[in-house]
Amino acid sequence: TVNPDLASERQTASFSVEKLTAQLDGGAEHTRIRRAVVQAIECDPVFSRENQYFQSQNERYEAAVRKAVHLQKKMHEMGWTENGPEFKYIYRALSGDVAFLLHRIFMRSISVLGSDKQIAKWIPLATQYRLIGSYAQTELGHGTYLQGLETTAVFDITTQEFILNTPKISAMKWWPGDMGRSATHTVVFAQLYIHGKCYGVHPFIVQIRSLQDHSPCPGITAGDIGPKMNFEHVDNGYLMLQNVRVPRENMLNKFCEVQPDGTYIRRGSQKINYFTMTTVRISLISDEVIIPLMKACTIAIRYSVVRRQSKLKPGEQEAKILDYQTQQEKLLPPLAAAYAFHFINNYLQELFDKGYREIQRKNFDMLPELHAFSSGFKAMVTQYCTSAVEICLRACGGHGYSLLSGLPSLYTKILASCIYEGENTILLLQTARFLIKCFMTASAGQPVPPSVTYLAAVKPGKCPAKNKLDFLSPDIYTEAYQHMAVRLVSSTAAKLQDLIQSGVKKHDAWNQCTVQLVQAAKAHCHYITVKNFAETVEKLETKAGIQKIMKHLCDLFALHGIFSNAGVFLHDGYISGAQMDMVTASYLDLLAVIRKDAVPLVDAFDFTDKSLNSALGSYDGQVYQRLYEWAQKSPTNKQMSPAYEWYLKPLLHNTLSKI
Amino acid sequence: TVNPDLASERQTASFSVEKLTAQLDGGAEHTRIRRAVVQAIECDPVFSRENQYFQSQNERYEAAVRKAVHLQKKMHEMGWTENGPEFKYIYRALSGDVAFLLHRIFMRSISVLGSDKQIAKWIPLATQYRLIGSYAQTELGHGTYLQGLETTAVFDITTQEFILNTPKISAMKWWPGDMGRSATHTVVFAQLYIHGKCYGVHPFIVQIRSLQDHSPCPGITAGDIGPKMNFEHVDNGYLMLQNVRVPRENMLNKFCEVQPDGTYIRRGSQKINYFTMTTVRISLISDEVIIPLMKACTIAIRYSVVRRQSKLKPGEQEAKILDYQTQQEKLLPPLAAAYAFHFINNYLQELFDKGYREIQRKNFDMLPELHAFSSGFKAMVTQYCTSAVEICLRACGGHGYSLLSGLPSLYTKILASCIYEGENTILLLQTARFLIKCFMTASAGQPVPPSVTYLAAVKPGKCPAKNKLDFLSPDIYTEAYQHMAVRLVSSTAAKLQDLIQSGVKKHDAWNQCTVQLVQAAKAHCHYITVKNFAETVEKLETKAGIQKIMKHLCDLFALHGIFSNAGVFLHDGYISGAQMDMVTASYLDLLAVIRKDAVPLVDAFDFTDKSLNSALGSYDGQVYQRLYEWAQKSPTNKQMSPAYEWYLKPLLHNTLSKI
Repeated sequence: TVNPDLASERQTASFSVEKLTAQLDGGAEHTRIRRAVVQAIECDPVFSRENQYFQSQNERYEAAVRKAVHLQKKMHEMGWTENGPEFKYIYRALSGDVAFLLHRIFMRSISVLGSDKQIAKWIPLATQYRLIGSYAQTELGHGTYLQGLETTAVFDITTQEFILNTPKISAMKWWPGDMGRSATHTVVFAQLYIHGKCYGVHPFIVQIRSLQDHSPCPGITAGDIGPKMNFEHVDNGYLMLQNVRVPRENMLNKFCEVQPDGTYIRRGSQKINYFTMTTVRISLISDEVIIPLMKACTIAIRYSVVRRQSKLKPGEQEAKILDYQTQQEKLLPPLAAAYAFHFINNYLQELFDKGYREIQRKNFDMLPELHAFSSGFKAMVTQYCTSAVEICLRACGGHGYSLLSGLPSLYTKILASCIYEGENTILLLQTARFLIKCFMTASAGQPVPPSVTYLAAVKPGKCPAKNKLDFLSPDIYTEAYQHMAVRLVSSTAAKLQDLIQSGVKKHDAWNQCTVQLVQAAKAHCHYITVKNFAETVEKLETKAGIQKIMKHLCDLFALHGIFSNAGVFLHDGYISGAQMDMVTASYLDLLAVIRKDAVPLVDAFDFTDKSLNSALGSYDGQVYQRLYEWAQKSPTNKQMSPAYEWYLKPLLHNTLSKI
Repeated sequence: TVNPDLASERQTASFSVEKLTAQLDGGAEHTRIRRAVVQAIECDPVFSRENQYFQSQNERYEAAVRKAVHLQKKMHEMGWTENGPEFKYIYRALSGDVAFLLHRIFMRSISVLGSDKQIAKWIPLATQYRLIGSYAQTELGHGTYLQGLETTAVFDITTQEFILNTPKISAMKWWPGDMGRSATHTVVFAQLYIHGKCYGVHPFIVQIRSLQDHSPCPGITAGDIGPKMNFEHVDNGYLMLQNVRVPRENMLNKFCEVQPDGTYIRRGSQKINYFTMTTVRISLISDEVIIPLMKACTIAIRYSVVRRQSKLKPGEQEAKILDYQTQQEKLLPPLAAAYAFHFINNYLQELFDKGYREIQRKNFDMLPELHAFSSGFKAMVTQYCTSAVEICLRACGGHGYSLLSGLPSLYTKILASCIYEGENTILLLQTARFLIKCFMTASAGQPVPPSVTYLAAVKPGKCPAKNKLDFLSPDIYTEAYQHMAVRLVSSTAAKLQDLIQSGVKKHDAWNQCTVQLVQAAKAHCHYITVKNFAETVEKLETKAGIQKIMKHLCDLFALHGIFSNAGVFLHDGYISGAQMDMVTASYLDLLAVIRKDAVPLVDAFDFTDKSLNSALGSYDGQVYQRLYEWAQKSPTNKQMSPAYEWYLKPLLHNTLSKI
C-alpha cells in the first residue's frame, strides 16, 4: 500500500506521467525496450544491489566481477548485442555497478589508435575475454598534462623491442580502472625514445599478469590503490615497470610507427584522437551525471511529502516538509536542472552525431567548437549536478545522511565526475580560450561557428521587463543570459588585452585572468542551456499538459540562475535592482506552482525501487518501515560485538545488578 | 627529508609561525600544554588511527570503545582531570575518534534537569562507569520539532510507575549515539500523560540493557541504525519501548514533578534548558567545524606546492599548482575563512561566558540574543566550512578523492554538522525571527541588544570607495556588509508587513518570506564575522609580521564575500558596477600576496602528521612515496581475491599461454 501522503500527490498531476516518460525516452517504443531490459536485469539475483551499503571494498569488487562475467551470459541469453537497441539501457539498469568498463576503453583505444593488423590480432582476443584489458595513462604525479608523463619506452634496435620503465615514483601509473586486480593487459602511455631522442607520448600494449596463474609478469609491480570515496567496485590500480620488454609490433601504430632501423614515421591526422576524448566527455553526462541527479531528486522529493515536521498553520497537523518554501527552494531548482540537462544532453548528442558524420567525410572544421562544447558542458553539468545531489542529501536531514537513503553513494560517486575525464577548471579554461578567440575573430568581422555568433552581436541596452510576469517570457530571460555571457567574455578579453598592452607577458596575463575566464565559460554554457530549454519547450506537443509544466520548469531554471547569480546580471545595470525584485517574486511564485506537480515530475523519470536502492525514495513511500527493516540487516546488528566482552564488560564489572 | 618544493615555501615566511601558533592557542603556555597532550596521546599505540581508512564499521566501533576505556586509564596516569587545562585538548588530539560521547550528554542532562537527589544517585554511577548512558530524543519521524515527539510515558498511580511506549513506528527512537550497542541506560524524552491528560515532553531515565550480560531489558528492542556517511565509530541506535516501566523517581524533576497522587507541578524557570542547547551549538564550532577546515586547508595547500602540473611559462619546468590563480582562488578564501571563524569563535566564547555569568545571577535578558547568535553562527559556520572542505578535496584532484588523502573523511564528517544540533535552515530562520523583531523594535525607537543596534542606523548613501586600494580599508568593507545586512533585514520585514496588510495570514506570510529571511540571517552573521575579524586585527601585536598577514587575510575574507555575493551589494547601487570591478581587482591581487605565505599560514595551525592522517598533507611533503606505501596496506592488496578463482580464471580458461 502506498503511503497516503504520497498517493495524494499523484492524484492531482497536471499532466500525463506516462506521456512525459515517453518524451524523455524519445518515444514510447524506447520506454518499452528500456523497461524490458530493466526487468530482465532486476529479476536476476546475480545483479542484485540489495546488500551494497553493507559491503566492504573487497566484496564490492567481487560482486562487480561476478556481474561482468554473468552479463556476457545474460546478453547471449536475451539476444542483446552491442549494436542493438537494448545495449544502452544495460549500464543504466546495473547502475554502473559492474567490472571491466576499462576493458571497453582498452578495446576502443586499439580500434582507434591501432593499425588494421593490430586490430585484427587484439580485438578478437578482447571480445572473447581471452585477456582483460585496461588503459594506463594517468601517473601518480601526472594527470591532465599528458606531455608531462614520465614513463619511458626506449627502442632497442638489437632486439626490436621497446623497453618500458618507471624512472621514478611520480611516474608510477596510478588510478587506471580494472588494473589493480583484474587486468592481464593494458595500454601504457610512455615517452618514446629512439637513439636517445624523445618523440613524445605513445601507446604500447603491455601484458602485466600471467594468463596461467594471474601472477605479475617479470618486471611488473601492480596492485590496488586502496580505498576511495566511492567506486569500491572498481579496482583502480598502480603499475610500475622495470625493464619490461614488448615487441616493436606492440606500439599502436595507426598514426606513427617505428621502423626496424629506428626511423620514426608520423602519418595521417591525429585530430581524430582529440575527437575521441571529446566524445567520452559527452557520453558520460547522461549515465554518470544526469541520471544520478534524477535519482537524488526522486528520493528527496518523495521523502519530502512523506516527512511531516512542525506546523505551517497553528492547530493543524504537522506539515509535509515540501510545503515549506525553503524546502521547495532546495529541491525544485535541482529538479528543473535535471530536465534542463536532459534536453541539453539531447542537443549535444545531435551535435556530436553531426560532427562525427563530418569527420568521417574528412571535414575537421567543427572540431574546435565540439571540443569547446564537450569541455564546457562536461564541467558545467558535473559541477551543477554534484552540488544539486548534495542539496538533495542535506534536504533529507539525518535520514539523508544514512547510507540507506541511497543519497550518500549518489553524492560520493557523482563528485568524481568533476575530476575524471578532465578536471573541471582546466576544461572551463579550454572553453574560455575558444570563446576569447571567437570573440576576437567576431570583433574583427570574421565568421565564427554558429553557436558563438551571438558574441558578435553586442548590444548595450537594458532589460525591457516591466513587471514580474514579463520575466516568464523566454525572450526576456534568454536575452538577459546572452547579454551577461557576452559581457563576461568581452570584459575578460579586454582585461587580457589591457594587461598585454601594458607589458605583462602573455602567459602571465592569461593566468591573471583565469578566475574571470572560468566565470565567462560557465556563463556561456548556462546561456546555451537556457536557450536550448526554451527552444525545446517551444517544440513540445501541447497536449497532455506536458508543454505547460515544462514551460514552468524552464522558467524556474532560468530565474533560479538569475536569482543565484544576481551580481553578474546587475553589474552593468542590464537588470536593475527593481527588476531583480521582480525576478525574485516570479521565482518564488513558480516554486509554489511546480511544488504541486513535484511528485509526478519525478515519477516520470521512471526509476524502479531496485534502481533507486533507497529506504527513502521508494514508490510506496513506506520510509520508516524500510529504514527499520534495512538497518536490521546491517553487520553491526548481526553479531554481538567483541567490544562487549573485551572492553565494556570489564568496565562495567563492578555493577552486576540492576540499578 | 622535506620535499624541496615545500621547504622553499617556509624560507620566505613574512611572519613568525611559532608566534602565530601561540596567538591562535591564546598564549605560548597553552601551546605547550596542547603539545604535551598531543604527544602523550599520539605516542600511545591504543590511540592510533593508522589503519582507520581500511577499517569496517564494526572495527571502527570497537576501536572507539577500546580508546574510550583506555582514555580513563590514561587520564589517571597523566594526572589529567575534567577541570584541568589539558582536558580541552584531549578530544582534539583523538580527532574525536572515541566512544561514549553521549555518556557525557547523559550526565549533563541529569545535572541540568535532575533534582539534587537524582544527581546524587546517578552522577557517581556514571562517573565510575557503572553504567553507560545515552540520550534518546530524536525519533524516526521527529527531529527538530520536539513537541511532535510521539513516545508516551503514562503515569500509573497504582504502581507509582511510568509506562513507556513506542505507539507507532515513526515514534521509534533513532540516531542516539552510543545507544546501538553500548548504552545500558538512556534518557528518554516522551509525552507525559497523567489521568489521560498530556503534559508535553519530559525526560525519563530508562535502563535498556542488562548489567549482567548486556541483553536487552524486558520490553526493549534496540540496535544499530546501520551504515552512515561517516561516524562509523559511533553506534547510533534505535530503541522501541513496549510497556517499559520505570519508577516515579526516574522522571528528571528539577523543573516539574509528578506527585504520588498524580498532581503535576511545574516549578522554576525552564529557560536554562534553552541555554544548554545554545551552548552545545557554540561548543561544537571549534572542534567539529573549524579544526577540520584547518586540517583540510593544511592538506590541500601543502599538496598544492608539491604537485606540479603543466607550464605557466613556456620552456620552464612544470609549475606548482598553487601558482595558478584558479587554485589560489579555491584554497586561499577557505584559509582566510578558517582564521575568520577562529576569531569569531573566540568572540562567541566570550559572549557566552558573559551570558553564563549573568544567568547565574538570575538575569536572563541576554538569552534571546545568545540563542539567535548560537543558531545563526552554528548554521553559517558549518555551512561555510562544509563547502570549503569540499573545495579543498576537489582542489586536490584524483588524489583528494582517495581516502588516503584524509579529505573524504573530513568532508563526510563535517557535512553532518549542517544537520545535527539543529538543521541549518531552521536555525537561520530562528535568527531571522530575532532580527525581524529587533528591527521592528529599533524602528519604533525602542532599545535592542548591542549586537543589533546597527539595524536602527539605516543610512541610504553609497559606498565612498574611489579606487581598488580603498577596498583594503576595513571601514569601507565593514560598512558595505552592514549596509547589505540592514537592507536585507529591512526589505524582508517590509515584504512581510505588506503581505500581512494585504490580508495574507501571518504564518502564510512568514512562509512566503523564508527564502529571503534565511538570506538576511546569513548576511547578519557574515557582517558580524567581518567586523570582528577587522577589530581583532586592529588589536593584534604589530611585531613579528602577524598583524600584517592577518590584515591581508581579513581583507581577503571580506572581499571574497563581496565578490561571491555581488548581487546583494549591487542590488540597491550601494556598490556600483565600477566599484565591483575594483573589489575584484583588489581581491585577485590579494590572492597573489597571500599565496606567498600560504604554507606558513597552515603550518601555524600546528597539526602533527598523525592528527592529519593524510598521505597528501604531511609536514615533509613526501606525497607520492606515502600514497604508495599506504595503498599497499589496503586489504584489497592483502589477499588474492576469490574473484580470480571463481570468475576470472574460468573466464580466461581458454587462453593459458602468453599471447
